Amino acid sequence: MGEFELLARIRERLAPQGPRVRVGMGDDAAVTVPGGATATSVDAVVDGVHFRREDAEPAQVGHKALATALSDLAAMGAEAGEAYVALGVPPGMSEDECVELIDGIAALAERTGTTLAGGDVTRAAALTVVTTVVGHAAAPEMLVTRAGARAGDALVLSGEIGGAAAGLALLERPELASAMSAETAERLRARQLQPHPRLRAGCALARAGASAMIDLSDGLGADASHLAEESGVGIRIDADAVPLAEGVAEVAAAAGRDPLQMAASGGEDYELLAALPRERMAEIGAVAAEAGARLTLIGEVVEGKGVEIRRPGLPALEPSGFDQLR
Amino acid sequence: MGEFELLARIRERLAPQGPRVRVGMGDDAAVTVPGGATATSVDAVVDGVHFRREDAEPAQVGHKALATALSDLAAMGAEAGEAYVALGVPPGMSEDECVELIDGIAALAERTGTTLAGGDVTRAAALTVVTTVVGHAAAPEMLVTRAGARAGDALVLSGEIGGAAAGLALLERPELASAMSAETAERLRARQLQPHPRLRAGCALARAGASAMIDLSDGLGADASHLAEESGVGIRIDADAVPLAEGVAEVAAAAGRDPLQMAASGGEDYELLAALPRERMAEIGAVAAEAGARLTLIGEVVEGKGVEIRRPGLPALEPSGFDQLR
Repeated sequence: MGEFELLARIRERLAPQGPRVRVGMGDDAAVTVPGGATATSVDAVVDGVHFRREDAEPAQVGHKALATALSDLAAMGAEAGEAYVALGVPPGMSEDECVELIDGIAALAERTGTTLAGGDVTRAAALTVVTTVVGHAAAPEMLVTRAGARAGDALVLSGEIGGAAAGLALLERPELASAMSAETAERLRARQLQPHPRLRAGCALARAGASAMIDLSDGLGADASHLAEESGVGIRIDADAVPLAEGVAEVAAAAGRDPLQMAASGGEDYELLAALPRERMAEIGAVAAEAGARLTLIGEVVEGKGVEIRRPGLPALEPSGFDQLR
Repeated sequence: MGEFELLARIRERLAPQGPRVRVGMGDDAAVTVPGGATATSVDAVVDGVHFRREDAEPAQVGHKALATALSDLAAMGAEAGEAYVALGVPPGMSEDECVELIDGIAALAERTGTTLAGGDVTRAAALTVVTTVVGHAAAPEMLVTRAGARAGDALVLSGEIGGAAAGLALLERPELASAMSAETAERLRARQLQPHPRLRAGCALARAGASAMIDLSDGLGADASHLAEESGVGIRIDADAVPLAEGVAEVAAAAGRDPLQMAASGGEDYELLAALPRERMAEIGAVAAEAGARLTLIGEVVEGKGVEIRRPGLPALEPSGFDQLR
């Protein structure tokens, strides 16, 4: 497989480029006309670290690579713009498989209004996809960092968590699926293999005045800790309020694990965790409708530092004590 | 080595961020306030493909990774802005070596006015550095693509070529160095290991009205072909006019190769090849002074297609027939 031939096949398959892109793939660099501010993030996924080729179709690998990168833009409240993909192709991977992988990227790009504007292809020891994404906003003040949470803010979570960790457990131990319907098991595996970036929710929460935001890639405990640290505050989470994805309880029970701990320590749910000034909570229903996602009050921002996950009648979970899935 | 600990060490070592960067490394995404247009490019370098760890210090690997990416911005005539680095760390590579690699990136970033604004660190099977760079211009029309060359334009080359190919030959066969001084051999190896992006020359050529431009990563023959194809023109190069780096003739002679073929087929010189309307050639001395580089008229743009490299008294070299070093 030649690099030039593969790049030519990739160029043929791409959707028309967005209005900000003046020169797309194929020149020395892409040329864009950005908004007043850009948010840029890079994310690498590697076979054997972030996925296993035996579990995931090439298109799913491509989807996940772009999804995890776009999730960072969602966490800033940015509008998706352009993506740049560096593909490391291992020995034995065919040109058709590479094109399938790109198709997985292109399908999610089209659905999210992202233009695949540049890339690089190289040989590699293991399949590697590095995705850089650029998002846009009218002004830098409209983008939400991890650093603005204030004591008294409400803590809001999009969607449900634990699905990705349960899905990973099902991929590793298929026998755990016996306690649930095939549809539920399939949905959990899809949460792991094909996560969805919460771009609409990120923009809605930013417009609603979110003071700080982060996406859950490392897990609720770890990511809440990042947000607390960057904001110089503490965070209290009510365990009972945290919504778990359907089937998580069953997988956890079959695996002999605590479902909340599985959910809060397992990463890759790519839901958003946002701090929101209390007075904005009155509008949370309208924000959720705009977000296209369930938004749940799961705790609050407090003076101090660290994250406490309170369980009625039990000692609080220490996020730092959580096991890491990887 | 933990990802978070390494990222923290990296953050500590970075130079202050440029004026366009509002949020640098450490949040979900970097926030920048771009100019009227951006040029963005991504470049991957992998151990065993683009370098060999036994030949290159970690700082040289970092330098080369950023340099090759910045060279694409030079070829657009863009001003360097931000860099985003995904580092794939193989088993056995120490945290100190990772920091040395980042130091190599940071040193070149500082010298070129580039802000290292984001990154990702992951385990990998082989050392991998994927660098995305963003450059700026006041408007998209000021950036130079590969597609604007017109018949009659002069063809101008920055610097000298062949040094990177000769340097690679010296790394692979150290005995070839016996015919030259140690300083010359060292300079050739440095051309291969630590190339310099021609950012000043790119901006100067863009301001001088270059109609098309490309950087020489694949070799003069191949890259001239890319430019000819994208512009829908032919290119004629006078072999005698092509300036070769000092020592290339000696290495080629020792290796039993034709020096021009070694220079024109060997990639990675990262010099610029630009098409310039004839009437602008009167100012070429001033442009060269602004570029901080020698600029040489090596040929012309003609009607038709393809690239011809004319050698007086010999058949023309066919760029497509050139051997590829890798």
